[in-house]
Amino acid sequence: MAKNTAPVGNMLIAQSGGPTMVINQSLVGAVLEAKKHRQIKKIYGSLHGIAGILGENFIDLRRESAANLEAVAQTPSSALGSVRKKPTKDDCRAIFGVLRRYGVRYFFYIGGNDTAETTHIINEEARAHGYPLQCFHIPKTIDNDLRENDHTPGFGSGARFVAAAFMGDNLDNRALPGVKINIIMGRHAGFLTAAAALARVHPDDGPHLIYLPERPFDENKFAADVEKVYRRLGRCVVAVSEGICDKKGTAIAAKLSKEVDSHGNVQLSGSGALGDLLAGIIKSKTNISRVRADTFGYLQRSFPGIASPVDAAEAREVGRLAVRHAVAGRTPSGSVTINRKPGPKYAPLYGLVELRQVSRETRHMPDKFINKDANNVTPAFVAYAAPLVGPLPKIGRFKGVPVPRPS
Amino acid sequence: MAKNTAPVGNMLIAQSGGPTMVINQSLVGAVLEAKKHRQIKKIYGSLHGIAGILGENFIDLRRESAANLEAVAQTPSSALGSVRKKPTKDDCRAIFGVLRRYGVRYFFYIGGNDTAETTHIINEEARAHGYPLQCFHIPKTIDNDLRENDHTPGFGSGARFVAAAFMGDNLDNRALPGVKINIIMGRHAGFLTAAAALARVHPDDGPHLIYLPERPFDENKFAADVEKVYRRLGRCVVAVSEGICDKKGTAIAAKLSKEVDSHGNVQLSGSGALGDLLAGIIKSKTNISRVRADTFGYLQRSFPGIASPVDAAEAREVGRLAVRHAVAGRTPSGSVTINRKPGPKYAPLYGLVELRQVSRETRHMPDKFINKDANNVTPAFVAYAAPLVGPLPKIGRFKGVPVPRPS
Repeated sequence: MAKNTAPVGNMLIAQSGGPTMVINQSLVGAVLEAKKHRQIKKIYGSLHGIAGILGENFIDLRRESAANLEAVAQTPSSALGSVRKKPTKDDCRAIFGVLRRYGVRYFFYIGGNDTAETTHIINEEARAHGYPLQCFHIPKTIDNDLRENDHTPGFGSGARFVAAAFMGDNLDNRALPGVKINIIMGRHAGFLTAAAALARVHPDDGPHLIYLPERPFDENKFAADVEKVYRRLGRCVVAVSEGICDKKGTAIAAKLSKEVDSHGNVQLSGSGALGDLLAGIIKSKTNISRVRADTFGYLQRSFPGIASPVDAAEAREVGRLAVRHAVAGRTPSGSVTINRKPGPKYAPLYGLVELRQVSRETRHMPDKFINKDANNVTPAFVAYAAPLVGPLPKIGRFKGVPVPRPS
Repeated sequence: MAKNTAPVGNMLIAQSGGPTMVINQSLVGAVLEAKKHRQIKKIYGSLHGIAGILGENFIDLRRESAANLEAVAQTPSSALGSVRKKPTKDDCRAIFGVLRRYGVRYFFYIGGNDTAETTHIINEEARAHGYPLQCFHIPKTIDNDLRENDHTPGFGSGARFVAAAFMGDNLDNRALPGVKINIIMGRHAGFLTAAAALARVHPDDGPHLIYLPERPFDENKFAADVEKVYRRLGRCVVAVSEGICDKKGTAIAAKLSKEVDSHGNVQLSGSGALGDLLAGIIKSKTNISRVRADTFGYLQRSFPGIASPVDAAEAREVGRLAVRHAVAGRTPSGSVTINRKPGPKYAPLYGLVELRQVSRETRHMPDKFINKDANNVTPAFVAYAAPLVGPLPKIGRFKGVPVPRPS
């Protein structure tokens, strides 16, 4: 058995990137696990990710009651605050100065691929500076696009919101027919947009069309697709990813925005511009008069009270496992992963990979999840996503026996 | 005791205007009550309101099982389909021709003020044509703007969605600070937008500013208000009604749209244009860099699984009462109302008014519900709305004991 090289010292945990409905489950899972291990002394939370390290804005997580930790775990969004910041070499030097003064030997960073990249940079620089640090990434992203993972905490709950929203919106569109376009989050990967498919109960239910960033978006084909559905059903509900790209791979929403963060990401969310652009395409290229667009926006990642139970439990577990790996001392760094046990019944299979394996680049929807016409998902995707999303609202519909016309 | 002049005949029920989360409760309440009365023979549902009468598209609601009626009652949106159509005199003549052939003596129309106007027109024309018809309006509108009512079925559930959404969005904004503007439905009345105030748990919680159609909107004051909050808290969450108007009373969103329905209403929903316009104002008039806008859109009236229990029960009851009034025969027409019993504990007080009293014109937020600065609501509004909305998600927050800096 390998020697346990895990140090004795203080722990720092932080959150980064876009919040999710269950990111606090991971935080609380890590804190509760840390309390069990004698190697971990103080448990500090950094406010707003690495910005809180640079600014020395820490809170003492051992001072939070068990009841309060549970209440926070059930609450959406990042309870420690978040940030979108890629550290420079100078930032790293400053970070190690702070960590040294606070006696931090354990660092946990909860987030997506950009957060994994930051964790990787901090880990590499720590080695280069000879600063001994157990450095672990805890996965989270509603985009579901971390490599080495079957799926990512946050996705199941975001997908549950999207599916429920489409259930209701499909009924609204059935009551007042027309074309309804809904824009869903997902910068590079279409998983969250694809989850709209889970809303379908009856054969005529929307979304009738689904457009993903994995396939080039052509506005003429889009208009023809919509018109075809509209001719058949007298209405059409469409799910579109905010990340849809033209043939050259440029995001269409990016052409409508100028804002870029330090990871190089252009602002796609927080605007209705893409939806309005697509509604305008349908209005100009078809004769359909009632065309509406909604952008689900930040509600997809922050709406309280509807987290997927499976997602919440898995988010808790990856936080817990990151601490266990850190204190086990077999490896000084890594990222916890979730894959799927083989077999007919869904069960998660947790693992650990190197930070570089999940940082920066993202994964995409596999081809088997996208139909040939590039305007829908396959049954394989629905089978993949359903257990992650959990139970959805029951939708009633009249049998609707027509009344014969009086003779 | 007055003689019961209620006829024996068939009943027709229909839904009109924007769907709500509980409009099917009213429909099912009416159907279940109708089944108890020997005066009512067939129970027909007209598909898409009066369009279904003109097209003779009826379904037989006696053929729906009790279990299916309950499932539909729990389901958002208008199960019979909806329409936005004001009948002409020719339409009315055609309608009576159809009603006569189908032996219809009871007509129930579920909707808002435009629907009440249509019911009123049909009732007046029926008297003029000598067509004997019990003609009742059943209230519904998320806008909460029917005259003669304390509140309206659909509002409590829409308000519950809005309040929960702001709870989550406030946390999202706290995690990644900036200015966040959310556009809420409400053409003439600010009730639904005002319900965002119910999201506040802690003193620094958003929405920090609320703009309603009842007060003229000035973009310079708006920018100054936002900047003031941002300077104090480092962030700002804003609730804005889609119906906000300039000093002349012209809806700002109406300037961005060209679509008008037969009741003269310009399209306000189904576009992100107003939110993007307001975000642009903040970006151009302040130095704040992170400004985002979401438009809650149709989810406010259609999201499944989160209806307010009080709202659902009251929606059921107004449907039931409309049928009871109709078969009681003391009056051939009317609109069921909901007011509030005096006293400290909330209890509804149902009544009946003439159709003309609730048709066409809408009511607005009373002055006592709006602050002097015209950018927020008063505690009186919160006390008014809270019992209608029901329980909201519990929000956890860290006590957040700061870690002292090492000396």
